[in-house]
Amino acid sequence: MNPLTCDDFLGGKVRLWQPARGYRAGVDPVLLAASVPARAGDSVLELGCGAGAASLCLAARVSGLRVTGVELQPAYADLARRNARENGVDMTVIEADLGALPMAVKSRRFDHVIMNPPYFDRTASISSTQAAREAAMGEATPLKDWLAVAARRLAPRGYLSLIHRAERLPEIMTCITGTLGSIRLRAIEPRAGRAASLVLVQARKEGRAAFVLEPPLRMHAGARHMSDRDDYTPEVVAILRDGQKLPECS
Amino acid sequence: MNPLTCDDFLGGKVRLWQPARGYRAGVDPVLLAASVPARAGDSVLELGCGAGAASLCLAARVSGLRVTGVELQPAYADLARRNARENGVDMTVIEADLGALPMAVKSRRFDHVIMNPPYFDRTASISSTQAAREAAMGEATPLKDWLAVAARRLAPRGYLSLIHRAERLPEIMTCITGTLGSIRLRAIEPRAGRAASLVLVQARKEGRAAFVLEPPLRMHAGARHMSDRDDYTPEVVAILRDGQKLPECS
Repeated sequence: MNPLTCDDFLGGKVRLWQPARGYRAGVDPVLLAASVPARAGDSVLELGCGAGAASLCLAARVSGLRVTGVELQPAYADLARRNARENGVDMTVIEADLGALPMAVKSRRFDHVIMNPPYFDRTASISSTQAAREAAMGEATPLKDWLAVAARRLAPRGYLSLIHRAERLPEIMTCITGTLGSIRLRAIEPRAGRAASLVLVQARKEGRAAFVLEPPLRMHAGARHMSDRDDYTPEVVAILRDGQKLPECS
Repeated sequence: MNPLTCDDFLGGKVRLWQPARGYRAGVDPVLLAASVPARAGDSVLELGCGAGAASLCLAARVSGLRVTGVELQPAYADLARRNARENGVDMTVIEADLGALPMAVKSRRFDHVIMNPPYFDRTASISSTQAAREAAMGEATPLKDWLAVAARRLAPRGYLSLIHRAERLPEIMTCITGTLGSIRLRAIEPRAGRAASLVLVQARKEGRAAFVLEPPLRMHAGARHMSDRDDYTPEVVAILRDGQKLPECS
């Protein structure tokens, strides 16, 4: 693996080793972790955990979680184990393809399944080469398979939490409607008046509550990018720096 | 039919006769009309047109439309005809069940199909009696049938535009994904930080563009209802009073 960097998350409450090149955790897994309605002692399964960013940020907010991560790539699985150990989190990392989970995972049901399936950052310009790479990386396992595996691994009344590109929402909704319920959707909008870039989706096994379309989370203040300094909104600062939970509206 | 009232819409640009009791057009058909990307001369089919509020508000903004309304209830169909005539709009109103459209409609394809299927206002408290009435009125024709009829009546590249309660979004997305494309979704949020009450959904026959989750339209300024005076946001005033189109974000 290429050289590593050690990066602070949640204002330094979580420190993660990551490869200097290739997939690197940004704000997305942190937002995902902030959206998970976990309580102390719950069991959590992260599908495609990478170097562990989402699980470890969640564990930093909620104590006593029993976390299992599944990761296809050995180098990332190793990093997740190291990151869990160095951050003092009880996390079992299993190197496996989602389509061929070992019995240690397939025999269990979890209170939470969380996922941040691979995708490229659409805020960057996309050349045809990047588009091909995006398709290959994003769809090595089709999104519907991620969602089907998640639904099967959830305990009754368990929660699925995921973050993905907004443009995949129709597919996500189609896949989970019928198998999961009590769906809650939150748009992540880059700035006021902009289309959502990402969506957070929560759904519950055997959930029967009405669908809720929550108010969007706005990432940046101001109408446009003015400088290299970030201009996160206070709500986002509370999540990214202070490790707070994303509030649910009533 | 019970006594009529004559009500101003779009700051008086449209005047509608409506029954004093029973279904009365509020802001919903006006928001629907503001969302329709119609151009002069387009053909428009409104399913369940009631007294004609959405079609007539749309015709007030876009000139030269050829509008067809379908309405099950004879009294509302009569009102729609009268309202179209008195507002100088070329609108043909057909009294029919959506499931048994006459050949005059079934033989045609339209540039736009618009709909505001019946539903109760969830902002009012719902007694069990009201819930029963809601179910009966809202589902005399299942929502999936409304959507299927709409998809069939659209011309190639034609647009479906609808407004409905936010909680019906999963069903709407599931029904139109696959048959229509280029879906755009906009939440109508009552106030800042509140869950969406309504959704505007646009989709295009043979559309291939990525799904877009637009920024929400916020109805009211301020954190809560402070008095009997409305406190519409400037964006909503521009739509409701000035008859402007709802802007699409890029």
